[in-house]
Amino acid sequence: MTAHRPRVITLLTDFGNQDAYVGIMKGVIAGINPFANIIDICHSIPPQDIFSGAYLLYTSYKYFPRKTIHVAVVDPGVGSRRNIVCVETKDYFFLAPDNGLLSFIIQDEKPKSIFRITNSKYFLPSPSNTFHGRDVFAPVAAQLSLGVKPQKLGIKINQLEQLDIPRPVPKKKGQVEGQIIHIDRFGNLITNITKEYLVKGVGGQKPEVRSKKPGAFEKISKEKILLKYDTMETTIGKKRIVGLSKSYTDAKPGKPLVLIGSAGFLEVSINQGNAQRYFKVNKGSKIIIEIGQSSF
Amino acid sequence: MTAHRPRVITLLTDFGNQDAYVGIMKGVIAGINPFANIIDICHSIPPQDIFSGAYLLYTSYKYFPRKTIHVAVVDPGVGSRRNIVCVETKDYFFLAPDNGLLSFIIQDEKPKSIFRITNSKYFLPSPSNTFHGRDVFAPVAAQLSLGVKPQKLGIKINQLEQLDIPRPVPKKKGQVEGQIIHIDRFGNLITNITKEYLVKGVGGQKPEVRSKKPGAFEKISKEKILLKYDTMETTIGKKRIVGLSKSYTDAKPGKPLVLIGSAGFLEVSINQGNAQRYFKVNKGSKIIIEIGQSSF
Amino acid sequence: MTAHRPRVITLLTDFGNQDAYVGIMKGVIAGINPFANIIDICHSIPPQDIFSGAYLLYTSYKYFPRKTIHVAVVDPGVGSRRNIVCVETKDYFFLAPDNGLLSFIIQDEKPKSIFRITNSKYFLPSPSNTFHGRDVFAPVAAQLSLGVKPQKLGIKINQLEQLDIPRPVPKKKGQVEGQIIHIDRFGNLITNITKEYLVKGVGGQKPEVRSKKPGAFEKISKEKILLKYDTMETTIGKKRIVGLSKSYTDAKPGKPLVLIGSAGFLEVSINQGNAQRYFKVNKGSKIIIEIGQSSF
Repeated sequence: MTAHRPRVITLLTDFGNQDAYVGIMKGVIAGINPFANIIDICHSIPPQDIFSGAYLLYTSYKYFPRKTIHVAVVDPGVGSRRNIVCVETKDYFFLAPDNGLLSFIIQDEKPKSIFRITNSKYFLPSPSNTFHGRDVFAPVAAQLSLGVKPQKLGIKINQLEQLDIPRPVPKKKGQVEGQIIHIDRFGNLITNITKEYLVKGVGGQKPEVRSKKPGAFEKISKEKILLKYDTMETTIGKKRIVGLSKSYTDAKPGKPLVLIGSAGFLEVSINQGNAQRYFKVNKGSKIIIEIGQSSF
Repeated sequence: MTAHRPRVITLLTDFGNQDAYVGIMKGVIAGINPFANIIDICHSIPPQDIFSGAYLLYTSYKYFPRKTIHVAVVDPGVGSRRNIVCVETKDYFFLAPDNGLLSFIIQDEKPKSIFRITNSKYFLPSPSNTFHGRDVFAPVAAQLSLGVKPQKLGIKINQLEQLDIPRPVPKKKGQVEGQIIHIDRFGNLITNITKEYLVKGVGGQKPEVRSKKPGAFEKISKEKILLKYDTMETTIGKKRIVGLSKSYTDAKPGKPLVLIGSAGFLEVSINQGNAQRYFKVNKGSKIIIEIGQSSF
Repeated sequence: MTAHRPRVITLLTDFGNQDAYVGIMKGVIAGINPFANIIDICHSIPPQDIFSGAYLLYTSYKYFPRKTIHVAVVDPGVGSRRNIVCVETKDYFFLAPDNGLLSFIIQDEKPKSIFRITNSKYFLPSPSNTFHGRDVFAPVAAQLSLGVKPQKLGIKINQLEQLDIPRPVPKKKGQVEGQIIHIDRFGNLITNITKEYLVKGVGGQKPEVRSKKPGAFEKISKEKILLKYDTMETTIGKKRIVGLSKSYTDAKPGKPLVLIGSAGFLEVSINQGNAQRYFKVNKGSKIIIEIGQSSF
């Protein structure tokens, strides 16, 4: 097969599925690059919820092939003077309003370049003030997928708007307070406490490590690292969960457990149940992790 | 790259996403034309709501590449003697039950031909009486995408069923009554009053125009035209909104505004809020527009 | 056109559309086989509802082109010692957890081979215990679509887990009790009584047939067969529906009817209405069919 690999363009929006907005964007893209491979990441971001969009984009972007163009449109400022930016990283392009949507990603990926998109040559004619997904994002993404360079799109800038991402708060030795940042379809409660955070130590209480060499952590699987803490307790509401599980099935059906979820965040779940309904919590609800070491 | 441009087939249905109906249609298409590029416009049309389907198809069809085959299946008469039609316009093909689904479109696009689809050679064998999306629409669309001519599909006819589309009702000089015809995911209230309607004059009150030459309107941006009215007030329920905005952000967050939406219809919105919940209205609810001129 | 036909990979999951899980799977597939044609069957299976997934997969799989790879992930046992299997049939490949998801299909399609998937060479590196859709199913499906043989994936086994599929229960001569196994978006009540079941006879009451030759049934359309019963009554709750319709429009709008639905199952519907709301029933609710013959 001699055909070129089709370039992937992903779409993440708060447009939902009850209207035609997403389909229209795909029509515009197909008209410019009929060979683009358009993949939906998610369109059910709650309206204007930039944080949710930023989180879901972060959990997914790196599973796409190199050179993928990730288009994210959660854009309460559409039609105002907020910028639209094209961010190039080592492996990817990102098109998004400059409103914090890329906040999680630029923690991990240093931008090679950031361009503010101003060149209306690449937009649909007479762009509206209310649907830049159709009039700006879709045509620009399609042009990028045809090989147009970001520097053609506008003006180089140096900084991006950043969301205020809630960080875990150490409380006392071995204790940290986190919060729920996402609740998925299954009712799993995903917190802002990452595997990396736990590995570095909780409230000054560090896990014991076999080797002090830099990078040693990477060679140990995540479960092995975490089990170096002798005890771990998670408090959510007035309930307490002991231990750290490896999979949902480590608890009996209907029973709660804590594990490191597939995106690397600590997650509270019910095996074959719905933790949100079980614990009656919401995004923003607090949880406490306590870690103990045998040396205590 | 020497590959042909893949033909686009769009799908708009009331099949929802909780079943496999849409996926099955795509499977049938892929079996006949593996290179077709299938794009979903919308599958969340309320069951049997032909008007909604007609509206969403109208707002989206022209953003797709030339020769796109638009397949629309909102079909309460499936299995009865209602017709299925293939309508060819200058740029597109439309496949739909002849029940008014194309009513908005044929206001804008004069059909080049209309064929009643009868040639079962292009259907799946033993078509059911309950799922023509799978047994008729999908295989016929795939055949069209392979180059089969509409005249092979059946019998030429001259007319299409038409929905009774509610029109704006002039009340007195400078005043018109419209109604809400669509409410989108964001709660934006989209009315049946178009930009073109306002340009032509409201209840006999015409906007002042710089030039009387035919086509002059087209050269002026829509905001400029509309601002030729000195005042504009929109009444919805017991509330009144003054002025015509250009973008959602022209109002403060949580505050109402009126603008011309991305499909060219007058729209009542709340910046970063939900106008349906704010005004407690529904599809069919009335709104009044009043226009004033300085020459009064 | 000399390009290869792109291989179709279908996805059926309980991942919903509010997260990025499905998009992530597609990203992984596109990274391995950029020419795969990925088609969604359904992602709205109720969480962990293996039966629903098995039913919807059954109603759709055979409408896809030969060599399609059907990937089904309704997987409450993810991360436990449940197996993941690759089943090859005459025309298709199926990838699924071995938990009964393929129960309906293997009634119709004798497996040519079944492999337990163990070869982590084809997985993403360091697979998680919570998201095998991303780490195992997606990459293995993509490898199959590139031509990797199932025997490379793991160990041959001979048997699959089976769901306990509820069968119709004959009550007395001419009477059978069925139950609702699926309710679709329109509120249609789909039962476990198939066309084939009715053809074979109801509670010992056989339809009259023109010919006793084997296979004679196949040559007669389904309506003709069924109408050989002189009378048919369906009881659901305290309501009774007389006769068997051919299409939804055989009843007046808002009135109930019974027909053989597009997947071959007896279905109770309301023309242009919602039978679930009308009858106030749910999955598992019972219905009774009574058949009469003129020879009585």
